Amino acid sequence: MGLDVDWLKAHVRDIPDFPAPGVTFRDITPLLADPKAFAATVDRIAEPFDGRHIDKVLGIEARGFVLAAPVAYRFNAGFVPVRKAGKLPWEIEREEYALEYGTDLLEIHRDAVHPGERVLIVDDVLATGGTAAAAIRLTERLGGELVGLAFLIELEALGGRAKLDGHEAHALVAYA
Amino acid sequence: MGLDVDWLKAHVRDIPDFPAPGVTFRDITPLLADPKAFAATVDRIAEPFDGRHIDKVLGIEARGFVLAAPVAYRFNAGFVPVRKAGKLPWEIEREEYALEYGTDLLEIHRDAVHPGERVLIVDDVLATGGTAAAAIRLTERLGGELVGLAFLIELEALGGRAKLDGHEAHALVAYA
Repeated sequence: MGLDVDWLKAHVRDIPDFPAPGVTFRDITPLLADPKAFAATVDRIAEPFDGRHIDKVLGIEARGFVLAAPVAYRFNAGFVPVRKAGKLPWEIEREEYALEYGTDLLEIHRDAVHPGERVLIVDDVLATGGTAAAAIRLTERLGGELVGLAFLIELEALGGRAKLDGHEAHALVAYA
Repeated sequence: MGLDVDWLKAHVRDIPDFPAPGVTFRDITPLLADPKAFAATVDRIAEPFDGRHIDKVLGIEARGFVLAAPVAYRFNAGFVPVRKAGKLPWEIEREEYALEYGTDLLEIHRDAVHPGERVLIVDDVLATGGTAAAAIRLTERLGGELVGLAFLIELEALGGRAKLDGHEAHALVAYA
């Protein structure tokens, strides 16, 4: 298990000073591009929820789609995109979340989750938790039952886990 | 086969006058949200390439990620994101493509495809073919060998197929 995680972590590329000076960006594209690492990542993200019924997997635009969609496929669940403002063409619910300066919006189609459906949220990175918390509120707004959240990476110093309202949450790879 | 396609098509929602007056947008989110339709879509998109070796599946931001990533997972291939300008953090190649007014850029990481690797491009819609043609050029720029292209929807009236340079291309659902 420990070795596996180190092996996955070795496929994450550190990009200094991106997108801003002093920030180290964790670039997951080498991990996605490696067939074995990509398959292992999808399987390991799904693993804590194996054997539990999942109706819908929510993915957050855009990198979140890359992991949430295969997890949905693996669970024989539906896939639901949570998108930035103005991208979804039908009736929506929206939630605000905080950026470093100001706020932004996440949107979901009103018929994307039906009351009582069991929902798993999957995203690439748990950072400040702002987008994940907005996705939780969107799920609850539609009457979905949140089974949990799964991330590839957790940036622990940013304290996002505290924003997840006590919901079950797993991350494969953690950075202090 | 015919019935299957009609059944998939019944999960596509027509949105009149989106994103502009006179345009009918084909909203695939009801299809993605339906567990059986989503799984069938991924399997049927992949089917023409079953049994052929695929090293990398390229997905085009953002809806393309939703189909390309599970196809990559199904083929035990790597996933490569082709993104809009400024989103990829490392060294890139870029290609221009035409919009209704003006042009836009698509980018790929320079190490995303290695020379000789066999590449499948997957996207949600083949419309004018501009983005697909740019993805083909990016693949060739990196020395990849294009196996083919697979789409969920083809908007035949827009003539995109003519831009695909004779490469093998399949679409599940066609609109005249």
